[in-house]
Amino acid sequence: MPYFDAASSAPLHPVARQALQASLDEGWADPARLYREGRRARLLLDAAREAAAEAVGCRPDELVFTSSGTRAVHTGIYGSLSGRRRVGRHLVVSAVEHSSVLHAGAALEADGGTVTEVPVDRTGAVSPAAYAAALRPDTALACLQSANHEVGTVQPVGEVAEACRATGVPLLVDAAQSLAWGPVEDGWSLLAASAHKWGGPAGVGLLAVRKGVRFAPQGPADERESGRSPGFENIPAIVAAAASLRAVRAEAAAEAERLRVLVDRVRVRVPELVPDVEVVGDPVRRLPHLVTFSCLYVDGETLLHELDRSGFSVSSGSSCTSSTLTPSHVLRAMGVLSEGNVRVSLPVGTASSDVDRFLAVLPGVVSSVRQKLGAPTSPPSPAPDGTDLTIDALGKRCPIPVIELAKVIGDVPLGGTVTVLADDEAARLDIPAWCEMRGQEYVGESRRERGSAYVVRRVE
Amino acid sequence: MPYFDAASSAPLHPVARQALQASLDEGWADPARLYREGRRARLLLDAAREAAAEAVGCRPDELVFTSSGTRAVHTGIYGSLSGRRRVGRHLVVSAVEHSSVLHAGAALEADGGTVTEVPVDRTGAVSPAAYAAALRPDTALACLQSANHEVGTVQPVGEVAEACRATGVPLLVDAAQSLAWGPVEDGWSLLAASAHKWGGPAGVGLLAVRKGVRFAPQGPADERESGRSPGFENIPAIVAAAASLRAVRAEAAAEAERLRVLVDRVRVRVPELVPDVEVVGDPVRRLPHLVTFSCLYVDGETLLHELDRSGFSVSSGSSCTSSTLTPSHVLRAMGVLSEGNVRVSLPVGTASSDVDRFLAVLPGVVSSVRQKLGAPTSPPSPAPDGTDLTIDALGKRCPIPVIELAKVIGDVPLGGTVTVLADDEAARLDIPAWCEMRGQEYVGESRRERGSAYVVRRVE
Repeated sequence: MPYFDAASSAPLHPVARQALQASLDEGWADPARLYREGRRARLLLDAAREAAAEAVGCRPDELVFTSSGTRAVHTGIYGSLSGRRRVGRHLVVSAVEHSSVLHAGAALEADGGTVTEVPVDRTGAVSPAAYAAALRPDTALACLQSANHEVGTVQPVGEVAEACRATGVPLLVDAAQSLAWGPVEDGWSLLAASAHKWGGPAGVGLLAVRKGVRFAPQGPADERESGRSPGFENIPAIVAAAASLRAVRAEAAAEAERLRVLVDRVRVRVPELVPDVEVVGDPVRRLPHLVTFSCLYVDGETLLHELDRSGFSVSSGSSCTSSTLTPSHVLRAMGVLSEGNVRVSLPVGTASSDVDRFLAVLPGVVSSVRQKLGAPTSPPSPAPDGTDLTIDALGKRCPIPVIELAKVIGDVPLGGTVTVLADDEAARLDIPAWCEMRGQEYVGESRRERGSAYVVRRVE
Repeated sequence: MPYFDAASSAPLHPVARQALQASLDEGWADPARLYREGRRARLLLDAAREAAAEAVGCRPDELVFTSSGTRAVHTGIYGSLSGRRRVGRHLVVSAVEHSSVLHAGAALEADGGTVTEVPVDRTGAVSPAAYAAALRPDTALACLQSANHEVGTVQPVGEVAEACRATGVPLLVDAAQSLAWGPVEDGWSLLAASAHKWGGPAGVGLLAVRKGVRFAPQGPADERESGRSPGFENIPAIVAAAASLRAVRAEAAAEAERLRVLVDRVRVRVPELVPDVEVVGDPVRRLPHLVTFSCLYVDGETLLHELDRSGFSVSSGSSCTSSTLTPSHVLRAMGVLSEGNVRVSLPVGTASSDVDRFLAVLPGVVSSVRQKLGAPTSPPSPAPDGTDLTIDALGKRCPIPVIELAKVIGDVPLGGTVTVLADDEAARLDIPAWCEMRGQEYVGESRRERGSAYVVRRVE
């Protein structure tokens, strides 16, 4: 049963399991104690810190273990903001950061600070120039992920770090998605990551803060982990995290090459096998194991459910698969289609045959979902006479508004318009994305008392 | 090699190990995902929550898992303070709470709030009347541990809860030390605990918040654990924590009875075997497995080191064993001797013969440490003529100032005084405690340019 959602959480690496089991006997005591059980625990913790620091590319005393990647991000952001409070309370982030970064930004804004979100292009990458332009004299911290968690696009960390260095702004890199594959490009000031993304156990994040970076831990004092991560250290899990990071790194180059081929196969074959699909993210500057595509006229939740029934575990940024019923902020920032969105992220060791089986199953699954929804199967018929049309899709959820639009576009003449009334958040993203895919002109959106009116002009 | 420091961290319970290993295969995926691996993880998490809630005595939806007991305490305190901000910013704590509580209080004070520390008696217990008197109209939260972590004294939680209820103040109970032995007395509003104290794995705390208690989680938003504990859930560890809590509870009554006998043996035999020892904490209302005593004229660090060499792992609240070189705040609040302090906390399953061996070894170890330090071995000689004496113990660390005092007390006449000049923090606690133990009169302390002058009058 192939699990294709390594970007959410990777199955435990065999080395992590071994290390965890071995250190349950040696690592349960308090490493701050002076007796033998404490000294043994301390030795394990120190060795794990050295191994993790080597993989990160920092000094052991620059690295602390946290209880999760989210905690590492929060601690890094708050510690930096507080350490540089005299400079200002302005934070720069990319629009496609992980929610842990964006939520920390929202909390800063609620507390009177300001946040600039640097937009991304249609591949999901920030422009170094745009990022540099967002830096201000009162910028306390800049955040940029090493690679995007939803579409796999690698960010220009080195160039952005250079811009940050030039203006004296520390750069926090969320390396959660990429650390398994190699160290982050030079120039970062803080780095956060999460062990369960590389096959380590849950419950371990890491935060590296370069010497000389102003940093003031927030919250109640605690002596553990240099005062940067309160609470009793989870040493068996930390040992397992460090050991598995070293293990995945040892095989990273070869495995990246192998998975890159499998992902390329998905990138090429899916649009050939399934009509009306948009593969998103940068095709070249990307994580080796991750590919995302969106299928027109498909309801993401049903698609995931059907793939699950066929044995494939994938995730989605579609609105219907989120608790807030809004499409993923990443897809929104990229301006790409969100309906029928599927993220495939291959765990280390994924068999080529599993990917082939996925490619064999997907077309039938998508087509059955489309059939159920009554999606159009052929291009619009030649334009008859006619006038502008309005579709009332109020109260209808993604992908219905787009399906209704596609069904009637052939009924208006070239130059005529279709106005879609819709109150589902996904329509704002998906109607323009459909126009882009179909070569039709997206005229614009106007707010109505309920929902919005989206106007599309038929141009082909 | 007997490990007698369960109050710091208990060795992993066999049930915890089993549950951890079993759930590594099922519990690594994201429980928020809809595919089968996610659903399995969710089932495990739900079952663990139900088991833990049953042991705590609350509803499953009142309980969240945190990454440590410290996090549970911090989250509980900040969430309550924030939820009741309109009431006021006053916090009541006992003077002997765990540092996680006191540090949260210090952070509140630094932020403009106020904290009242309710004092304890010589056994380490608060008086319910004194606690009730500390509650004010602007009190947002009251905190009381169920039992003390250093001396084992059980607090009158039920009576304090009643006083809190009467004034409408929520009570947070830090149950870290007692949850293994049974549920906390009724009446609490919030409850925090830590799995590695009961033989669960590190990396798991729990926080229960009764329905209806005002609570506003602080920090960046996060959907996990009802928004009260950000970061990816550590499900295998959570499963192991819940399973081991249930397991230790099943054996708690019988094991408590057995360990209580062993601890009573230590409480009775140590003062018989070792001269000049003070056993501290309530002899009756106490945890079953924990006993603490202090040895006059002994340096705690050397004592721990020698006991470690003899195969016994214990901890100490002596100043020389703390990184800040101040005696434990618990011993200080109780006003008992801190020098040569030893805490013995027996893990579940401790053999009676190990306790006997400890009792056989301890006298020799204490006596050798005393010999090295040149401690007085006999009571002061009959008083000769003489005048008041002054001892310069400036720059000398605990227990030297007390040793010097004991050596010369016989040299002053009845009614004469010895003035000890000392700048070691422990002297402030240990000189009065020595007077109490020896039946001499402690006159008082006056500050000097360097350190203090402690005046003792010989009365017997």
